[in-house]
Order: sequence, then C-alpha cells, then structure tokens
Amino acid sequence: MKKSNTLKERFTDYVHDLQEEICQALEELDGKARFKEDDWEREGGGGGRTRVIEKGGVFEKGGVNVSTVYGELPDPIKQHFKVDKGWFYAAGISLVLHPESPMIPTVHANYRFFELYDDPALKNTADRWFGGGADMTPYYLWDEDPVHFHRVLKEACVRHGGDLYPRFKKECDDYFYNTHREEARGIGGIFFDYLRSNESRSDHDWFEFTTDSGNTFLDSYLPIVRRRRDEPYDRSQRYWQEIRRGRYVEFNLIHDRGTLFGLKTKGRIESILMSLPPRVRWDYDHHPEPGTREAYLLEKLKNPVDWVQKNE
Amino acid sequence: MKKSNTLKERFTDYVHDLQEEICQALEELDGKARFKEDDWEREGGGGGRTRVIEKGGVFEKGGVNVSTVYGELPDPIKQHFKVDKGWFYAAGISLVLHPESPMIPTVHANYRFFELYDDPALKNTADRWFGGGADMTPYYLWDEDPVHFHRVLKEACVRHGGDLYPRFKKECDDYFYNTHREEARGIGGIFFDYLRSNESRSDHDWFEFTTDSGNTFLDSYLPIVRRRRDEPYDRSQRYWQEIRRGRYVEFNLIHDRGTLFGLKTKGRIESILMSLPPRVRWDYDHHPEPGTREAYLLEKLKNPVDWVQKNE
Repeated sequence: MKKSNTLKERFTDYVHDLQEEICQALEELDGKARFKEDDWEREGGGGGRTRVIEKGGVFEKGGVNVSTVYGELPDPIKQHFKVDKGWFYAAGISLVLHPESPMIPTVHANYRFFELYDDPALKNTADRWFGGGADMTPYYLWDEDPVHFHRVLKEACVRHGGDLYPRFKKECDDYFYNTHREEARGIGGIFFDYLRSNESRSDHDWFEFTTDSGNTFLDSYLPIVRRRRDEPYDRSQRYWQEIRRGRYVEFNLIHDRGTLFGLKTKGRIESILMSLPPRVRWDYDHHPEPGTREAYLLEKLKNPVDWVQKNE
Repeated sequence: MKKSNTLKERFTDYVHDLQEEICQALEELDGKARFKEDDWEREGGGGGRTRVIEKGGVFEKGGVNVSTVYGELPDPIKQHFKVDKGWFYAAGISLVLHPESPMIPTVHANYRFFELYDDPALKNTADRWFGGGADMTPYYLWDEDPVHFHRVLKEACVRHGGDLYPRFKKECDDYFYNTHREEARGIGGIFFDYLRSNESRSDHDWFEFTTDSGNTFLDSYLPIVRRRRDEPYDRSQRYWQEIRRGRYVEFNLIHDRGTLFGLKTKGRIESILMSLPPRVRWDYDHHPEPGTREAYLLEKLKNPVDWVQKNE
C-alpha cells in the first residue's frame, strides 16, 4: 500500500474489494443465479456499481451495491447540515438479500464513509465520519439464529472496545422500528452513524472498526442460510413471508433515512429501490393465530431482546 | 330534513349514506364477496366505519371507509397550521378498489369536510373547507376508459361552474405524480382541497359541488368495470399488474399526504393502509418492450393527457 493513501482512498478500495468478496461467496452459496452488474454515473460527480441477483436457488432477489459519489452538496443535504455551500465525498457499500424460502431471514448491511470540504477541489476537509451496520429480518424464528448473528457482530465490536456493542445494538433497535405498527422490522443487529474522531478514538480507529464489521458480515449471515436452506416450507408459510415483507416495504418507504435521502437527492432509483422485496402481500388486518410460530415472531418484535448475554 | 341541520351534520349524514350506496352497488357488481365491517373509535374523539371486501369475483381487495373524528387538534396538525391550540371536526369517505383482473383499473376516491374551532365545545367556527376527488390507475389502457371517467367527472364539475374541471384536473395531475419515477400514478381525474367560501362560491355551493362529485363516482367507474370484466388475461399481464401496483405502493407510502398524515396522527393503521394492493412485485430495473401495450401505458403516464376535449 502506498504511504500517501488517504482514508478516503483506502475506504473506497475497501468497499470495492468487499463487494467482490461478498458477491463471490453469495453466488457460490446460491448455486444457480449470477449477479448482474450495472455501472452508473451520477450527474454531479461519481457513480456506482450495482450488482443484483434474481430468481436464484437461494436468493429470490438481492443487491450488493457500491457507490462513490462526490461534488457539490445537493440542496436537501445543505439544508440538512444547515450550510450555504459545501462539497462532499461519500463511499459506501449497501446490501439487501431476500431469500426465496421463508425459513431463511432477509438481511441488510451497509458500511459508509462521508467527508465534507470547504472547497470544490475537495482538499480542505471540514468534517469526516463513518457509518453502517447490519440487521436481520426473519420470518420464522429459531432463537439460535439471532443469537449467532448478534454474537458475531458483538465479537467484531469487542475487538475495538467493550462499549461499542451495547451502544450500537441499541441504536439498531431504535432505528429499525416501524413506529406506526409499534414493532421492530427484525431482530436487530448493530447500527452506527457519525463516528468521528474524539478523545477515545481516532479516524483510523473508526476506519478499522467499520472495515472489521464489514469483514465479519459473511460470518454473521452465511451459517444461518446454510442451516435453514433445506428446511421444508408450505404455501401458508410463504404467504406469511409475503405479509411480513410488506412491513419491510413500509419501513423502507416511510421511515428509512437512506432511502428517502436517496430519492430526494435524485439518486439512481433502481439502485435505491433494489432493497424492496420481490413479492409482497397486504391483507386487511392480518393477525396470526395465538400460539403459532408466526405469533412467536411478532412477540419477539414487540420488545427488543438481548440475544447475547452480557458476559458472553 | 330539520331546518337546524348544519353543514357538518349534513355532510356527516351524506358520507354514511354514500358509503351505504357504494358498498351495495359494488357487492352487486362483484357477485361473490361481501364487505366486512369494522367500527372503531378514536382515542381523542370520534371514530369510523371501515368496510373491506377481499378475494371477490371482481375485487381482489377494496375498502370503503367513513370516519368522523373530532377533538383537540393533534400536535402534527397544529404544527402544520401553525397554531398553538385549536379543535376540529373532520368527516370523510375514502375508497380504494383493486380489481383482480389487470384489465380493470384500480380506482381511488375521497370526499371530506374539515372544520376548525376556537373552543373545545366546537361552537366557534374559525375555518371550514371541503376537499376530495377521484382518480383512476389502469394497467392496460383502452383510451375510451379514461375518456369516460373524465367525461363523467367533468359533467359533475360543469354543473357547478365552467372553471372547476380544468382547475381540479390539473391539481390531480400535479398531485398523483411519482416524482422519483417521473411518471403519473394513473390517468388522473379530479383533485380539490381547501374549498372555502369566497366571492364566487359559498360554503353551501362547495357542499353541493362536493356531494354531487361523490354522487357521480359510481357512474364514472362502474361502466368501465362492466366493459372490462370479461377481458381475458394471462400470467404475464398479471405480472405487469403486480409491478405497476408497486408504483402505487410507492406513491402512497412516499408521497401521499393523507397516508403520511394518518400515520403521524396515530390514525387507525389498518384503515389507512387498506389502500395498499393485495399482491405486489418489485423486480430490479423492469422495463416493458417498446411497442407493447405495457409501453403504451407508460408513455401516457409520462405526460398528462387531455382526455376530454375542451368543447365537449
């Protein structure tokens, strides 16, 4: 690695390498479909590489997208940051996987870097932070799945300090919550944003934490897919999955900051909305029967669970 | 009719009568399913009567809802109107019908009355207005269908003045627009809001206009259902319908003021979201082949069409 490499350059390389690694592992696991790649350019500067898999052996629909965009801040972002002018650079990887089987959870992960500048040449850095996280949305719940998912995420956190997992686990529970339904989108994970250098950690520390989190994504999710891919399921279970996917759509279109931000800033629609599930259902006033596996899931989504014990 | 009946009372009676009339006509047309009725109460005052039909002979899912709610203004409405305190009364009927056949358009209509007061007893009226409209969302387009729909809506407008149809037709085109897709939700109709007494029309004139509009709803839509209900269709046409229903969901959850307002003010979720289609699909980057009927629809949604000639 060149000595002169900035965090920006290093993180940009990182998200491209991670996209490569994750897509390769997912194709291998899927065994049937391949990712289709679309490179796109952004009018104001930069662009992205969208990779989508559809109608696979495991994945009914999934996307693993990288974008590196820069230039003058779009107006809605200026308003958000309350600045009259400014320039930015943003690099990130974002993925959502919707398996066909209702026995395998949907998963979402995202790792990103944002830098603000005072000048159009992007030289005078005014601010800089990392963000990201991973969270999982099951349709049928074996407790050992969220336990595994959280344990792997926690281990990655702990390598960078004991304070991080409890903090980011709570942020995830707070964020991925359908307030209008009073239930969580899924069983959580970790979520972090605006990770800036401070007394306890430098930019480089946050870089290491964010990339380490990204590197553990496959370990957190793939074993669960392998465990559940041969579980049998019937039409009524598929029906339930489609109902629950409706809640996923509701979260993404009503509450998700990233989605709404992308739509406001004229991002590439198809790359933003690749997160939406392939087949979805809305019935009027649908409720599972008490005592069923469907009711068990809902119960666990009503209140956040500590999936990993404190001393583990 | 009692002499003492206020506009509020008269409009409240009206929406209940209209719900009755519309549900009866729809059940007769459907021939298979019946409306299921749910009465609900609102914590702050008032409530509603939700009627939903599902898995019918014609209608895969539909709702015809009445609500009459009142009390102290909820905080988000206070902020919207920039007032510190205030009381309100709102009565309305709202309907969405999703036919099973992709050959029959989805339709939406809504007629409502809103009154603001200075006092908790709802005596000192501070403001008062009517709102509403009807619009249609086809999946396959026979030009004669939107022509019929608009012609009936226009006739109702013209009975109350020549200025109304062009004005409310444009408001509809502007409102039911998916900005993030740069396409209309459907072929339009009429949309009106904040109809207050002014130099040219009194409250009573707007009452007559709004109720007359509501009374013509069945004439605008039912002949189209009858015309298309026996059109054959295949799986690929049903597929296209499910893709297009995705755009309907996007509009309702991202842009529709009524939906977002209902969610913010803790309305009854199931009554608000009954508008969502029963089965929906999101494919990545779906585009119809040029020259197909599917492409013809999209073309007509890119720019608003004057379905009724000016002198008609």
